[in-house]
Amino acid sequence: MTFSERLTQIQENKRSLLCIGLDPDIDRLPASIRDGRSSADAIVAFHAALIAATAPYACAYKINFAFFEAHGAAGWEALQQTRALLPPDTLAIADAKRGDIGNSAQFYARSVFETMDFDACTVSPYMGRDSVAPFLAYPGKAAIILARTSNAGGADLQELEAEGKKIYLHTALLARQWAEDLPGEAGLVVGATNAVPVHAIRSACPTLPFLIPGVGTQGGDPRKILDAAGHAYGLNLINSSRQILYASSGPDFADAAAREAAALRDHLREIQSP
Amino acid sequence: MTFSERLTQIQENKRSLLCIGLDPDIDRLPASIRDGRSSADAIVAFHAALIAATAPYACAYKINFAFFEAHGAAGWEALQQTRALLPPDTLAIADAKRGDIGNSAQFYARSVFETMDFDACTVSPYMGRDSVAPFLAYPGKAAIILARTSNAGGADLQELEAEGKKIYLHTALLARQWAEDLPGEAGLVVGATNAVPVHAIRSACPTLPFLIPGVGTQGGDPRKILDAAGHAYGLNLINSSRQILYASSGPDFADAAAREAAALRDHLREIQSP
Repeated sequence: MTFSERLTQIQENKRSLLCIGLDPDIDRLPASIRDGRSSADAIVAFHAALIAATAPYACAYKINFAFFEAHGAAGWEALQQTRALLPPDTLAIADAKRGDIGNSAQFYARSVFETMDFDACTVSPYMGRDSVAPFLAYPGKAAIILARTSNAGGADLQELEAEGKKIYLHTALLARQWAEDLPGEAGLVVGATNAVPVHAIRSACPTLPFLIPGVGTQGGDPRKILDAAGHAYGLNLINSSRQILYASSGPDFADAAAREAAALRDHLREIQSP
Repeated sequence: MTFSERLTQIQENKRSLLCIGLDPDIDRLPASIRDGRSSADAIVAFHAALIAATAPYACAYKINFAFFEAHGAAGWEALQQTRALLPPDTLAIADAKRGDIGNSAQFYARSVFETMDFDACTVSPYMGRDSVAPFLAYPGKAAIILARTSNAGGADLQELEAEGKKIYLHTALLARQWAEDLPGEAGLVVGATNAVPVHAIRSACPTLPFLIPGVGTQGGDPRKILDAAGHAYGLNLINSSRQILYASSGPDFADAAAREAAALRDHLREIQSP
């Protein structure tokens, strides 16, 4: 089954577009989790409770490698343990934003798709085709390529216009083209903070799966974004991280996260079928 | 001391522009090193011998994270051990090509500059200012930003022209500007496989340190590149990886690597002062 087919099936089964981003900032974890544990162990304990509570509402989890790498090799141990906690009825996304020349990119792809068996990995397009192709070599997996990102700096290069098209649109069209002859599938990161690029990229790439961060703390409006990106299952993953993870700093953090996740899942469902 | 000041001092002391790239492909390590060791242990043993033999000729080592991450958490342990092997009279460059929104980039920067105490880190510019700024927050350290890379795919986005300038030149000018108000220093990755962008970027950024991969296996001509990038100390790091690491697959690999390193160091010196 392709990544998109699995995405569609899971989204239909759970009636959910929600992806939960795991960004474990050690300073924001509840004291009840931190006390008496190493940072790496606290991160795993936090995720064990959080994933158990939120799994009914999530079709995917996105693990951001930065928050683990800050703890060195012990953090990577926690990353692998967190990956192993993700239930089989969710997709596991490595939010690693890797990108290197082909020879090196092969090893990054091996790390996320073989050593850790993620279903997808975010990849930077700046170094072009041979930096992305190794991530497209795996059947059933996806390289989710940064197109238009949700942050303020996203405009610096991505909004420049070349040959009559914004750079983010060049990237989206290249991503589609790179994946055509390869076993894996391309997806795109398209930020929720601005609906204009979402609409432009969806028009150019009607079937590519979008990973859409930027609702919640970053302020994106889910309704505007889904109106631009499409309402059907299998097309979009709407990511929320901090708003769910840190819904409560007390010992009730997992229940509070589940309530936030359920509310956002339901809100997205209402937008799809008003 | 700034990164550039240290670079100048080390290059003058050693009369060397050579940076050695550590890309440990486990399948290419000598059998004498692999036998009886785990992959992670073999990588560390390989580097211990290689670094001891080549240190007189190198002003910097560039550790490519991909080759370590392929081995998971054990690989990250080997990465930290390899970092600890680098002698104090060389610069330690994290070739990690990280790039994420500001909140996440802070954790990547903490990983390479605090947890592992690298002197510089390669960074992707695609996500713009706030993705690079956390790497520019450390006095004495450098964010070496991808401008024009040495691989074939480097042309896909980097050679597009916007507002009369190639994307790689936009990146170089932005990098210079981003670093102006911040404690750290910007450098640029500029590939050796094409002298035209090297010349254009050096003209726009006369004093920024360049990390120049692509001589050796990738085929770049050191003379053309130094003529374009400048001959003085403190301006350029010429990187060679596979040609040095895999100079011999026998038990004499460290001596063979030292001979290759010495030859390239001497060749660069001749170009500087004919």
